[in-house]
Amino acid sequence: MRALLAPSSIALIGASGDPARLTARAQIYLRKHGYGGALHPVNPRASEVLGERAFARVEDIPGSIDFAYILLGTGQVESQIAAVAAKGAKVACILADGFAEAGPEGQALQDRCVAAAKAAGLRLLGPNSMGIINIPEKIAASVNAALEAETLPPGRLALVSQSGSMLGAIMSRGAARGLGFSHLIATGNEADLTAGEIAAMLVQDPGVDAVMLFLEAIRAPEHYVEAARLAHAAGKPLIAYKLGRSSYGAELATSHTGALAGSDAAAEAFFRANGILRATMLESFLELPALVLGRKPLAQPHRAVSVLTTTGGGGAMVVDALGVAGIEARAPDAAATEKLHAVDMHPHGRLLDMTLAGTRPERIEAAITALAAAGDTDAVIPVIGSSAQFRPADAVAGILRGRDAVGAEKLVAAFLVPQADASLRLLAEAGIPAFRTPESLADALRAYLDWRAPVPADISMPPFFDLAEAPDEGDARDLFAALGLATPYARMGDVADVPEGMSYPVALKILSPDIAHKTEAGGVALNLPDAEALAEAAARMEARVNVAAPEARLTGFLVQPMSSGLSEVILGFRRDAEVGPVVLLGAGGVLAELHRDVALRLAPVDEAGAREMIAEVRALRVIEGWRGLPKGDVEALVKAIVAVSRLATMPDIAEAEVNPLMIHESGVTVADAWVVRA
Amino acid sequence: MRALLAPSSIALIGASGDPARLTARAQIYLRKHGYGGALHPVNPRASEVLGERAFARVEDIPGSIDFAYILLGTGQVESQIAAVAAKGAKVACILADGFAEAGPEGQALQDRCVAAAKAAGLRLLGPNSMGIINIPEKIAASVNAALEAETLPPGRLALVSQSGSMLGAIMSRGAARGLGFSHLIATGNEADLTAGEIAAMLVQDPGVDAVMLFLEAIRAPEHYVEAARLAHAAGKPLIAYKLGRSSYGAELATSHTGALAGSDAAAEAFFRANGILRATMLESFLELPALVLGRKPLAQPHRAVSVLTTTGGGGAMVVDALGVAGIEARAPDAAATEKLHAVDMHPHGRLLDMTLAGTRPERIEAAITALAAAGDTDAVIPVIGSSAQFRPADAVAGILRGRDAVGAEKLVAAFLVPQADASLRLLAEAGIPAFRTPESLADALRAYLDWRAPVPADISMPPFFDLAEAPDEGDARDLFAALGLATPYARMGDVADVPEGMSYPVALKILSPDIAHKTEAGGVALNLPDAEALAEAAARMEARVNVAAPEARLTGFLVQPMSSGLSEVILGFRRDAEVGPVVLLGAGGVLAELHRDVALRLAPVDEAGAREMIAEVRALRVIEGWRGLPKGDVEALVKAIVAVSRLATMPDIAEAEVNPLMIHESGVTVADAWVVRA
Repeated sequence: MRALLAPSSIALIGASGDPARLTARAQIYLRKHGYGGALHPVNPRASEVLGERAFARVEDIPGSIDFAYILLGTGQVESQIAAVAAKGAKVACILADGFAEAGPEGQALQDRCVAAAKAAGLRLLGPNSMGIINIPEKIAASVNAALEAETLPPGRLALVSQSGSMLGAIMSRGAARGLGFSHLIATGNEADLTAGEIAAMLVQDPGVDAVMLFLEAIRAPEHYVEAARLAHAAGKPLIAYKLGRSSYGAELATSHTGALAGSDAAAEAFFRANGILRATMLESFLELPALVLGRKPLAQPHRAVSVLTTTGGGGAMVVDALGVAGIEARAPDAAATEKLHAVDMHPHGRLLDMTLAGTRPERIEAAITALAAAGDTDAVIPVIGSSAQFRPADAVAGILRGRDAVGAEKLVAAFLVPQADASLRLLAEAGIPAFRTPESLADALRAYLDWRAPVPADISMPPFFDLAEAPDEGDARDLFAALGLATPYARMGDVADVPEGMSYPVALKILSPDIAHKTEAGGVALNLPDAEALAEAAARMEARVNVAAPEARLTGFLVQPMSSGLSEVILGFRRDAEVGPVVLLGAGGVLAELHRDVALRLAPVDEAGAREMIAEVRALRVIEGWRGLPKGDVEALVKAIVAVSRLATMPDIAEAEVNPLMIHESGVTVADAWVVRA
Repeated sequence: MRALLAPSSIALIGASGDPARLTARAQIYLRKHGYGGALHPVNPRASEVLGERAFARVEDIPGSIDFAYILLGTGQVESQIAAVAAKGAKVACILADGFAEAGPEGQALQDRCVAAAKAAGLRLLGPNSMGIINIPEKIAASVNAALEAETLPPGRLALVSQSGSMLGAIMSRGAARGLGFSHLIATGNEADLTAGEIAAMLVQDPGVDAVMLFLEAIRAPEHYVEAARLAHAAGKPLIAYKLGRSSYGAELATSHTGALAGSDAAAEAFFRANGILRATMLESFLELPALVLGRKPLAQPHRAVSVLTTTGGGGAMVVDALGVAGIEARAPDAAATEKLHAVDMHPHGRLLDMTLAGTRPERIEAAITALAAAGDTDAVIPVIGSSAQFRPADAVAGILRGRDAVGAEKLVAAFLVPQADASLRLLAEAGIPAFRTPESLADALRAYLDWRAPVPADISMPPFFDLAEAPDEGDARDLFAALGLATPYARMGDVADVPEGMSYPVALKILSPDIAHKTEAGGVALNLPDAEALAEAAARMEARVNVAAPEARLTGFLVQPMSSGLSEVILGFRRDAEVGPVVLLGAGGVLAELHRDVALRLAPVDEAGAREMIAEVRALRVIEGWRGLPKGDVEALVKAIVAVSRLATMPDIAEAEVNPLMIHESGVTVADAWVVRA
């Protein structure tokens, strides 16, 4: 950990003596920013590089090496990994690209480097890594041009980024806001060390208050789970900005880093389940740390805030942007109103307009203190107009005193309507989150109110089911039956084997592990009124299917009662390429697919999680008594979701789905099901 | 117009001699910023105000008055309007609030002021107006504290804002970006002059290149229609930021200004129909002018752009944000690829990554020029990394040369990944739009690609229909039949009057102008198999309804064939409180309501508009051959939408709706309908 985050000896392999070259930068920047440890350029063609003693080979370096930065081209990396490993270095960082992201050959090269490093106990950073920067300890082991800056503002935020160039972008944008960093680390392709693993180290560093993650892909989700657990134990927020919200962005992020693309909904579920805050705007990514530093997730957020303003239009703009983000600016409750009356302020409506009450600091303080008494809001948002521009000390004083009076109990976060750099600086110095745009305020607050403490997955008593090698629909139904779902059906071994005791009319389907689309193969017959019709239909079906799919193995027939429910849902399980097992609940039918009316969670979920999913699927309001429609059995659906989500604990199942699951006034039943072995 | 935008004589009624008071500010600011016209403080208790000769009464002022700013309290405004009118002033601006927004008494007071002004040919600005600022002509007739600034950067953008405090906010935020303004005008409650009417004046001013509108409500939409028409003729963009995107914001915007709330969807349709660009972020509102200045709406936007980048992560961030906004970063087409190959650049995928190609100005120029050759994109977006921070001249040079080589044919807009103020300034000076965040870039580009030239509404040959005073469902059906929609039904005068030639089974409904919810009153019977069943059902229904709704006037029965379509839609017409007549198309059924799957346009629409609406309703993909489902009669639906939208020309119709309209393989039929008289 120290060797990575604060190496005391560094080898620069392939260091150039030409200051104009990229490969000279690490040495220049390390010296420029005052590196005090041992620094060893390695260059076979020079005994001195940029005025420092150079070594022809890694093995010639005297003493031990914490961190070897390999600056050579792709083709020379493998031999240098071997040399670095032989030397007993602890971390090797690879600058070159051309590995996993470049195709199968690159992937193979990367795999060989990882294997060699692993065998030697050497950890790898990269490939395609811009290195590490540790500002308080003056270690700038990076080629990032941001290090051209004369000074690097130190601070207590750490950044881990899969994109090297974002180190400089975030550092410079942070500096303009008064944000200083402790560490900035570029993980590149993450052949070995991931952003998640490094985040887990950083949250244990006493010099770090929060960790920011700029991510293109999530590799090794268990590292993030562990980092999040440690972060919450330490009271240090993890804040992520992840690409892939659009399909184009997802495609690019993965082609850029050689990772597999998961779905953004799964990534979102992953962040939420693990208590990682996600910003969806670059601006809110930078402004979120100040909002959450030193705070914990709210146990029961109201998704509502109290807004006071010295300017009607500016306040309305904030209320509108918050509303778009699903946060209500709520009128003061009785407790807050009483306190406001006591200081002769008379609220009406969602916005406490101070224009008449006066904008002197003591009035602002009184308003903040009074609004903080509301029991049904999560934060107090002062919105300040022109005084923030022309009388910064005054504009800030009231907010500061208000925050001090309120204490840590309730969040106080400000929006300044005009350009007001001095006021923003004063607020930042006082530790009060302040926002530059209403949209960024809304996104940051939304992330804060979405924030939950991570819940360890409950994997007690995993279900057991012995899945056939080539499962057919009957096997899939048996699997769901084993999970406790009602799956009324009977198997027919052959056309003569008409089952007893069916409740007619029934549907008949062909069973085959080889036929995915039964209807197209002529393998479905509906509304069969009696046993005779069933037997006839089975004979005709067998003949049809033998023509349509002559190669398919037929394993019999499936007979099930024709049934309709109050509503139909899709209940599915799959393993996301990035974050692993997820459970999905969607409205049934063609329209639901068009509307993408789906809720998704990491699997397994508990009953509370299942209830949240039901609440998210808009179409499911029809089973909750909406418009006087009959109510469906929500409890049975909750249990079904929990049960299906536990497929996460069965590694031989890759995907499984009930589609549709029928919801009745009492109970739910499986109408169709399939499963795919891992 | 000159009296409002550039008054050469100003009276300040109620001007205070105490510089600490709000009512002293206008005089202070006018002098501070160099007003050269005649300035007359009016104050009955002083012969001199702030060192200038004061008058006891307006009528004592020698000479004529262009602009009288009434700074007195609400109660004194009416008498001063009378005095100002008697004096023959051209414009009176009212600072006080407490008018329409304060309730019926305030509304009555406002109405009296307007009537008195109108009778005298006096135009009113406000109430609740912060006044006007004309920077090039040094006229700061405003109490906005933003005028504390020592200098006001002049420019060619005009701002009209219903919120006075936003004048200062936009001016200061603009100044920080190098944006200068010509005029900043606060319209407040708009009892008379609206932002739309003033915008129409401003686009005719040779000193104005674009007009920005900060709106809480749209009053007198015809003013905006006219302003938009003039703006397009002059090639000057109108750019709006309008509150009310969330329900909370809408509620507040209207309570703040006393306007009626229309729906945001209607406002959006209004802006689009009139070619007014709408920003949805404060940041993009400020950054849009540079993007659209001197440009015209694209005739056939591709909603796709070409992106080149000197930094992989930064470029991916832009691609992702554009994708979220519905804009594709598209790989170079054959023409662009050929040009790239000619300069030894080898694109692969959506992003032209220049990291290897080199970031020297001539390379950037070559890349921009080559990408501009793509026939299927609307803009070239260079994304610049650390060089923008450390070598501004270099970073900007390539973009500038590229833009010059491309010319006006294709938009070139930049995103700078790090904090890069110097580069932003250089780009702004060169007239190249440059963005601070990927989200703002995406929102501004989205607004640009949504931008259309305004289309004058076609109101030739309005339909005619003589609507009953108290229309029942039969009248509503006759109305839609008159518009050309198939509405198969028959009327039954009484229980014995069974209609001939019905195609059974049929549905029976009670007819009454007084019963809105027929089912609840027992007034609906379905699936009646024959004439006998129909007669019996009618007798039973009459008895039931007489008990359930004894006061209701019964006008007979309606008989219609039971019918089902491939799909059902809601097709409606209403008059929005802000923007007037709109036509609405939504998917039918309970789920569609839950999903808000609706398209809305200003009415009337033409066939192209109707086709756009159909494309917007997601559920309607089911009638377009989606998933192999049978195709519905889209052409008949297009004609129905156009026909219903023409209700706009029938002033006695307030609202009308077909719900559902059944879509068949051939034709559409009205299954249920209602109408409300204006």
